[in-house]
Amino acid sequence: MEQKLIFTNAVGNALDNLVDALDAASVTIITDTNTLRLVLPLLQADSRTAASARIITIKSDDINKNLDGLKHVWTGLAEGDVTRKSLIINLGGGVVTDLGGFAAATFKRGIPYINIPTTLLGAVDASVGGKTAINFNGLKNQLGTFTEALASVISTVYLNTLPRQEILSGYAEMLKHGLLDDTDTFASLLKYNPIYPDFESESLLPLLRKSVSVKSRIVEADPLEKGPRKALNLGHTAGHAIEAFAMKHGKPIPHGYAVAHGLVIELVLSHIRLGFPAETLRQLAAYILENYGAFDIRCDDYDELISYMRADKKNSTPDEINFTLLHAIGKPQTDCTAAPGQIGAAIDIYRDLTGL
Amino acid sequence: MEQKLIFTNAVGNALDNLVDALDAASVTIITDTNTLRLVLPLLQADSRTAASARIITIKSDDINKNLDGLKHVWTGLAEGDVTRKSLIINLGGGVVTDLGGFAAATFKRGIPYINIPTTLLGAVDASVGGKTAINFNGLKNQLGTFTEALASVISTVYLNTLPRQEILSGYAEMLKHGLLDDTDTFASLLKYNPIYPDFESESLLPLLRKSVSVKSRIVEADPLEKGPRKALNLGHTAGHAIEAFAMKHGKPIPHGYAVAHGLVIELVLSHIRLGFPAETLRQLAAYILENYGAFDIRCDDYDELISYMRADKKNSTPDEINFTLLHAIGKPQTDCTAAPGQIGAAIDIYRDLTGL
Repeated sequence: MEQKLIFTNAVGNALDNLVDALDAASVTIITDTNTLRLVLPLLQADSRTAASARIITIKSDDINKNLDGLKHVWTGLAEGDVTRKSLIINLGGGVVTDLGGFAAATFKRGIPYINIPTTLLGAVDASVGGKTAINFNGLKNQLGTFTEALASVISTVYLNTLPRQEILSGYAEMLKHGLLDDTDTFASLLKYNPIYPDFESESLLPLLRKSVSVKSRIVEADPLEKGPRKALNLGHTAGHAIEAFAMKHGKPIPHGYAVAHGLVIELVLSHIRLGFPAETLRQLAAYILENYGAFDIRCDDYDELISYMRADKKNSTPDEINFTLLHAIGKPQTDCTAAPGQIGAAIDIYRDLTGL
Repeated sequence: MEQKLIFTNAVGNALDNLVDALDAASVTIITDTNTLRLVLPLLQADSRTAASARIITIKSDDINKNLDGLKHVWTGLAEGDVTRKSLIINLGGGVVTDLGGFAAATFKRGIPYINIPTTLLGAVDASVGGKTAINFNGLKNQLGTFTEALASVISTVYLNTLPRQEILSGYAEMLKHGLLDDTDTFASLLKYNPIYPDFESESLLPLLRKSVSVKSRIVEADPLEKGPRKALNLGHTAGHAIEAFAMKHGKPIPHGYAVAHGLVIELVLSHIRLGFPAETLRQLAAYILENYGAFDIRCDDYDELISYMRADKKNSTPDEINFTLLHAIGKPQTDCTAAPGQIGAAIDIYRDLTGL
């Protein structure tokens, strides 16, 4: 089933129309404590569906995207007499859409659900593509399903409830989608300044629509991640390593910041391995440096960073480090492997580009 | 994806061939404490795959088909470094195939799995059709997915480890499939005597193959239970009520026994409502009486039995009681509703037919 993507800042209206068409027996909103306070009242003011829905609240933050949270939602659905003719709405960021989607996918073997992402990262990434998940046994997204939402209602209207860091974190995934799309999309992203108050306006919505359509196109071609969908891993092998390194050294950075730095490193590697154009690489590096700063890597850190890349779950064996690289904008090559020496050379160039 | 059904009593050989073709990175067997003792050694003697597989054991019995059991299996998979290139084998009855299937369907968003049912009920019902489940919040099968096994290896070779009651319990579902198929299938089932030592021989295997193919055909036409698959509910509205009634009054009976009595009551109702042939009804009633005995229903019990039917999760509203009935053998009619008076009349006739 193909997921319906609705881009609008009239979210309440879009939701009511969707629910009217579905004729659901009951509506349950799953949200988190922050969204409950900051966003739900706005949606309830605009939507009779939201105003009359049952609410199940989970705790905010990724650390609560776990089995306890899932059990809490399952229990709430059972006590609310939710049936397969009911509808679930996930209102929140990636934690809510991942966990709420998993609960919906498994309660009575599947209740239809709609995502209303309230963060930029959620809008551009988590709410689209049918990946549902919780963390388990100390590992991220260990449990879940591939179950697409009936629809995702994507807006920029709630983004001004978010801190600047959260916006930039989501914007890094948009840059990734731009690199996977074409030079026009990428250029329009580099021109945009994702800082207050610009993104409050309608101006971000068309960029967001374009970005989500890139992801959606890739996912539809490969819903179960057997091959081409791995293109979406661009920036993430190095990015996850940077995220883990920062966490380990007590200076955690947002996921999207790690991806931003990971994109630069992996474009350097793309330049070395596949001849990715140096000029585009320089443009991206300058944009990342200006908005995200530089990630401080010392010579002594290379081995540790590379060891995190080695542990990545995308690798088939611990000896190969797997990347998605680019021949050029819009021309990804999945399942590239690189030797530690080449990765080290790429990090050298990253440090040069960011002036470290 | 269509589930591969393999009917053979050379189970070990079939399993090794399947696993060789899949080239799995690792193999994990999920089983229960009884099957571990009674069946696993037999399979390990016949199969190098089984002999070298990791084993995860859950507790036997439906009461343990719960979130604790699921968490135990998920933890075992995580600790065994199971990946999407691994393979899971569910070896056991419905508890193992339901819970193990759910674990496989959700670990890392889905690990391929094979069912090897070791009970007749598992072979003919639970192991085929992709329904995975655990009980939750006091209700049966509240959580689960529709996720088909890669294959189900169906045999009669382990059935002599089972008590006679278990065989008869599974045979009731075979009778149901016969009623949904055609007069030849039904007649061959009535001719067969599912009692030691007959079923130990190869003679049950062709009947079982026929029976599973009936279920498989219905499931493939409607994998998500939107419509035609409800035909498989034949006998189960009355059957579940009898099962609940017996449990409530401290005299629990096996699921299949309740279904056997439920089939007779629902064929009476089919006769009243849809003109189902009286002669076939009498044949079935005589067979059930001989092998399963009569279920003792008094006049005072009618209201309670009907109240259980009213609570059935298949009903859209509490005022309608929903049945799958038959116009004739092989001609089911789903979504029939019946009034309490008609149901009472059907129970009257059931009591006459069984000599109560």
